[in-house]
Amino acid sequence: MNYETMSKDELLKEKASLEEFYKKYQQMGLTLNMARGKPSTAQLDLSSPILDVLTSKSDFKSVDGDVRNYGVLAGITEAKELMAAVMECGTDEIIIGGNASLTLMYDSICRSYTHGVLGSTPWCRLDKVKFLCPVPGYDRHFTITEHFGIEMINIPMTPTGPDMDMVEKYVNNDAAVKGIWCVPKYSNPQGITYSDETVKRFAALKPAAEDFRIYWDNAYAEHHLYADKQDKLLPIMEECKKAGNPDMVYEFASTSKMSLAGAGISAIAASKKNIDDILKLMNAQAISYDKVNMLRHVRFFKDINGLRAHMMKQADLLRPKFEMLLEMFDKELKGIGAGSYLRPLGGYFITYQTVDGCAKRVVELCKEAGMVMTGAGAPFPYKKDPNDNIIRIAPSLPPVEELKTAGELFIICVKLATVE
Amino acid sequence: MNYETMSKDELLKEKASLEEFYKKYQQMGLTLNMARGKPSTAQLDLSSPILDVLTSKSDFKSVDGDVRNYGVLAGITEAKELMAAVMECGTDEIIIGGNASLTLMYDSICRSYTHGVLGSTPWCRLDKVKFLCPVPGYDRHFTITEHFGIEMINIPMTPTGPDMDMVEKYVNNDAAVKGIWCVPKYSNPQGITYSDETVKRFAALKPAAEDFRIYWDNAYAEHHLYADKQDKLLPIMEECKKAGNPDMVYEFASTSKMSLAGAGISAIAASKKNIDDILKLMNAQAISYDKVNMLRHVRFFKDINGLRAHMMKQADLLRPKFEMLLEMFDKELKGIGAGSYLRPLGGYFITYQTVDGCAKRVVELCKEAGMVMTGAGAPFPYKKDPNDNIIRIAPSLPPVEELKTAGELFIICVKLATVE
Repeated sequence: MNYETMSKDELLKEKASLEEFYKKYQQMGLTLNMARGKPSTAQLDLSSPILDVLTSKSDFKSVDGDVRNYGVLAGITEAKELMAAVMECGTDEIIIGGNASLTLMYDSICRSYTHGVLGSTPWCRLDKVKFLCPVPGYDRHFTITEHFGIEMINIPMTPTGPDMDMVEKYVNNDAAVKGIWCVPKYSNPQGITYSDETVKRFAALKPAAEDFRIYWDNAYAEHHLYADKQDKLLPIMEECKKAGNPDMVYEFASTSKMSLAGAGISAIAASKKNIDDILKLMNAQAISYDKVNMLRHVRFFKDINGLRAHMMKQADLLRPKFEMLLEMFDKELKGIGAGSYLRPLGGYFITYQTVDGCAKRVVELCKEAGMVMTGAGAPFPYKKDPNDNIIRIAPSLPPVEELKTAGELFIICVKLATVE
Repeated sequence: MNYETMSKDELLKEKASLEEFYKKYQQMGLTLNMARGKPSTAQLDLSSPILDVLTSKSDFKSVDGDVRNYGVLAGITEAKELMAAVMECGTDEIIIGGNASLTLMYDSICRSYTHGVLGSTPWCRLDKVKFLCPVPGYDRHFTITEHFGIEMINIPMTPTGPDMDMVEKYVNNDAAVKGIWCVPKYSNPQGITYSDETVKRFAALKPAAEDFRIYWDNAYAEHHLYADKQDKLLPIMEECKKAGNPDMVYEFASTSKMSLAGAGISAIAASKKNIDDILKLMNAQAISYDKVNMLRHVRFFKDINGLRAHMMKQADLLRPKFEMLLEMFDKELKGIGAGSYLRPLGGYFITYQTVDGCAKRVVELCKEAGMVMTGAGAPFPYKKDPNDNIIRIAPSLPPVEELKTAGELFIICVKLATVE
């Protein structure tokens, strides 16, 4: 069966049959959700013993003193060591933040807007600021740049990362281009990891703007689905140093999807020069972030090996969900002319690429049968998917049984939207 | 003995005798610190059982769902109820933040700078923005406004609060005046609580600027030293409503000096209209603050009565320190023409007002004998004390024995600086 080669009559017949199936699901009164990249309750339970490692009987000593009291703006040394191992940087090249790297990203853009970068003109004094946005990408990145009135330019993703010819053209020639949003490993939403060549081309950029920064959101650095099949990402900070561009990158990460989604710790990594600049400005905003929670994370994970072992347990909970959906897609959607999908080795999402012009309709059909999907268009700046063909699927939250039903319904909706 | 009426000879003799005492302290190789308003280890120990109330065996249910996962930007309902009781507002008039109200204050100013207030012109687009600063005040407030290039205007404090004639003159006539920093209860550093009349005059302001806000940092709302002698502060939000100015105030508070200094929860309270405006903008910055820590606080304090009972235990640790220092001052410094001091009933500080022109010298003398005091000038905008006569004393951190030595040394330094 292939929708592309079927006759009109055949398609009409298929449509009638699909509509019957679809109605059955509609009548089931489902309330399904594949919209949010939230960990499941089982994942949260796996991480909850982190709450047992610090009690009133603990010693609260870090290298930097009693974590219960005020002070230590950049975070405790032990937490810096842990996150520096994740982010492959030095402990003097990192600041530990609060419960969300999103906030660190917002605050970084905000500081550039109000105070500039290393003494450059604050962006609020400029007529035009532009950001490059590899698409599809993470909607909350685009929300931040839109919030500050920054013009966003779509850069198509390829299987090896953003289209680097376009990136180089913009960054090296237009001084209004101040940044690019990247999720370089197991990207949101496609699960693509940037190739070595892509990373090296990033590191070798020659920005027209001195305050251009790569916003390297390494959100899924340790979020593999398999022990034996893992993507590898070149460390951007090291590559930037080698290329003579040590100050060109801000890297972000958090433990949100390692420990507890709402109660993790976050980090920003950058050259010592950048970090000093950030701390100088951040000093007006905070005395320190929650150091008790930092120590809690350090005592729980112990070190990068402990963290990786924990992430393999997370993988054991996530992998079956990814595999089940992908097997269903293989069986039902592969080679029938109804779109395509990638097989990520990590991260939190599967991206389904429909036939052009069908994504909105699929999401609408799902909704009318009681299933919430991420809005079509959400992974694009201004929520505009130029080809209306990208759907982000988040398999993490629903239990496996629910996810099976959700997958079945999704397949029917994809087929139906395609034949329509 | 009174330095004001002593002859030159008598003063020289006194100076020689004081210098001998001073030398003895210098030779003791002291390392004392009365600079920082930090809780003592005993206070932190008192609050550490808060770390026992949530473990991996707990249920993590709030009214708003599992606190371990993403979501609920304004904070969990139970935490809103707790902090709304402290701040005397409704639960729809409050947002729970991270571990520092300072960050909420910075972010509020920052949002006004980048996006304006309820749709008004962003401050970064204005030629001039001014803030009123009751002095002496909290240095970190002034750091924020200085950071954003806001012109700060000194408003003298009186025993009933800021000089309201001056406040009214500025606020009601100058549209560039966008805010005033207030610590209305047990003020930092004087321990003054605003009188009912002062609060009512605040509520009745008729600002020339529509985006003028009172920044009401109610940092010491429950921080009494005595069970029976307590200052009372009229609730500003209620008074503003009565006066027809419901949107004129942002109120701030935190549990930093209730639970753990680096790991508390914070809150901003304001009219529903303001809160909606803030949440709309904050949505770009955060998904939610740490809800696990919010639930931890709710389970530990239970309600406002539990919180108040806990604060009385804190008072038992702080009161002896305040009383000892004040008794020493009464015995050694009262009525000798070497300055004056107030007797606060709460808060974290004692302010010593030296003879004009002596504060810097006292701090210098202390430093040379091994004791760190808050820098003279710190409680003023741009660190400039126009009369050089204010010293902030923070008795909370040192153990009682150390504090006794610190008090003795301080008294000698005050006397010596005065006779010099």
